[in-house]
Amino acid sequence: MTYSQAVLSGDRLALTRLLTQVENNVPEGREALIELFPYTGKAHLIGVTGSPGTGKSSLVNQLALYYRKSHEKRVAIIAVDPSSPFTGGAVLGDRVRMRDLSGDTGVFIRSMATRGSLGGLAQSTANMAQVFDAAGYDVIIIETVGAGQSEVDVARLAHTTLVVEAPGLGDDIQAIKAGILEIADILVINKADRAGVENTERALKSMLDLAHPTEHVFQHHGQSMRTVAPVQDSFSAPMWIPPIQKTVATEGKGIAELAESIGRHVAHLTHSGDWSLREKNRLEVELDALIRETLVNQFMEEVSQQQYDDAVQRIIQRKISPWEAAKSLMNGRLK
Amino acid sequence: MTYSQAVLSGDRLALTRLLTQVENNVPEGREALIELFPYTGKAHLIGVTGSPGTGKSSLVNQLALYYRKSHEKRVAIIAVDPSSPFTGGAVLGDRVRMRDLSGDTGVFIRSMATRGSLGGLAQSTANMAQVFDAAGYDVIIIETVGAGQSEVDVARLAHTTLVVEAPGLGDDIQAIKAGILEIADILVINKADRAGVENTERALKSMLDLAHPTEHVFQHHGQSMRTVAPVQDSFSAPMWIPPIQKTVATEGKGIAELAESIGRHVAHLTHSGDWSLREKNRLEVELDALIRETLVNQFMEEVSQQQYDDAVQRIIQRKISPWEAAKSLMNGRLK
Repeated sequence: MTYSQAVLSGDRLALTRLLTQVENNVPEGREALIELFPYTGKAHLIGVTGSPGTGKSSLVNQLALYYRKSHEKRVAIIAVDPSSPFTGGAVLGDRVRMRDLSGDTGVFIRSMATRGSLGGLAQSTANMAQVFDAAGYDVIIIETVGAGQSEVDVARLAHTTLVVEAPGLGDDIQAIKAGILEIADILVINKADRAGVENTERALKSMLDLAHPTEHVFQHHGQSMRTVAPVQDSFSAPMWIPPIQKTVATEGKGIAELAESIGRHVAHLTHSGDWSLREKNRLEVELDALIRETLVNQFMEEVSQQQYDDAVQRIIQRKISPWEAAKSLMNGRLK
Repeated sequence: MTYSQAVLSGDRLALTRLLTQVENNVPEGREALIELFPYTGKAHLIGVTGSPGTGKSSLVNQLALYYRKSHEKRVAIIAVDPSSPFTGGAVLGDRVRMRDLSGDTGVFIRSMATRGSLGGLAQSTANMAQVFDAAGYDVIIIETVGAGQSEVDVARLAHTTLVVEAPGLGDDIQAIKAGILEIADILVINKADRAGVENTERALKSMLDLAHPTEHVFQHHGQSMRTVAPVQDSFSAPMWIPPIQKTVATEGKGIAELAESIGRHVAHLTHSGDWSLREKNRLEVELDALIRETLVNQFMEEVSQQQYDDAVQRIIQRKISPWEAAKSLMNGRLK
């Protein structure tokens, strides 16, 4: 029996081993992904992101517990730490988590630290999610730390993206990042028992108003007529306006309400056709990454190390620009 | 006269226009980069990164002012906000900055928001830095917000990377990220007049000890003998241990000392040979990005939209895996 067959039959040890193969991008992992692919497409992928200090991990734990206990769903957590070549934080985080969730075979937690490029990280995460999906996990929570491109990549991967904030994390103009709101399907204010929660909520609301203006000004008979109209974007109707959910994850407060909100988002995705659209986007991103990888591997086979090193030397000496070097290496290959 | 000739002769308006062309990656920008490349390689690239709320922008302003006034250097600032598709924060930040630095032709500030992929952002930043370098700016400060892959990319681009922290930004295990320390050449504790500065310094020191252990334990005659030895890594000797500099940027405190520390790092890079090594790495990263881009463009010309869309449809229907689709598109192209 191959690992992928064992995974399909529910073998937890085989799953662990296969995840490692997939993370390390070894040929066996590749083969298994091809075998498992027909069994994917059933899981709900939830991305959870936000700054350090917002209590994301506790929130993810509580959400996983909730889905286990109240909905009897099987839950996988992929904790991605894109800032870390060494995995200190993630490992410590895992230990803290295990206390609540260990022993439950319906929950699987996996940490990932970045080693290579970000492209590699997003692809590894997508591949791991596929394995969990094929293995019958109903909900796959992908948690990332930080604020940047990795979050956008998570958003592309997930059906539903939660952006977590917390009161009192900083009051300067950069503290709440506009860009991160664009990827949020649901905003969570965790640690909502802390002072300053009103300020955080107000700030988020005004950012939301900026990002999702619902008021339109129509010119009518020479007069400006202000009217409130629901906004329709080109892809989905009606548009989803990210709700703000308040939680105190350490006490389990607001978790059921958050899960309900997530449920409403799934219903919205399904009715609007956005679910299929997100699936399509996700699979296209994956296909593109694989095409890129294959192209580069092919190029590297066809251009010798010597040719490449020579080109680099000529660039360093400012004899040719990187552009000219790239072109000449490509042409050499085509001859 | 082309834009690049005008830029070389010190035309500020031409510089502004060329930067836009380069940022938008239009053919004129490409041509100019090739023309300007022989004039590059002289500037000192300083990366500045850290979490929101650390006061990075004020620090960068003060550092720029210091280099202008005390060393009469020409300074360019590239402010990159990888979290933002819309540029709210960056634009507001710019206005705040302009008060101190406007009117000085020896200083040029340019903001950049992410639009496309991260690869694109890193490449745009590198290209802009090349334009400033050719235009005779002695110091180019590249400022990024957030903690993630973009910071690692900045580190690859810069000769000297400052990681900025501030007291009281969060006390959980993720607050000071181990990975970000790995890219730091100099650690800055800004807002060092705030309460909790000792805790921040202690935390950074213990992280540094983890990342750069200088004590080795030798077994000697059956006894453990603890001895302090300088660590040598395979590339540089002696190794650079990131110093911790304390600043209060809003009051200009600690800026001269920080600049001195940066000067020592430049001397270290030069003596150890690391300057050339970093230049080489940087140019290789750029060459690789250009090769990838050219390969993908070539592929897209050779594979029809119809072929690509068919492949995506078959993936969505789970008839073939993304891997098989990538292979079949590549093979179709090679026939």
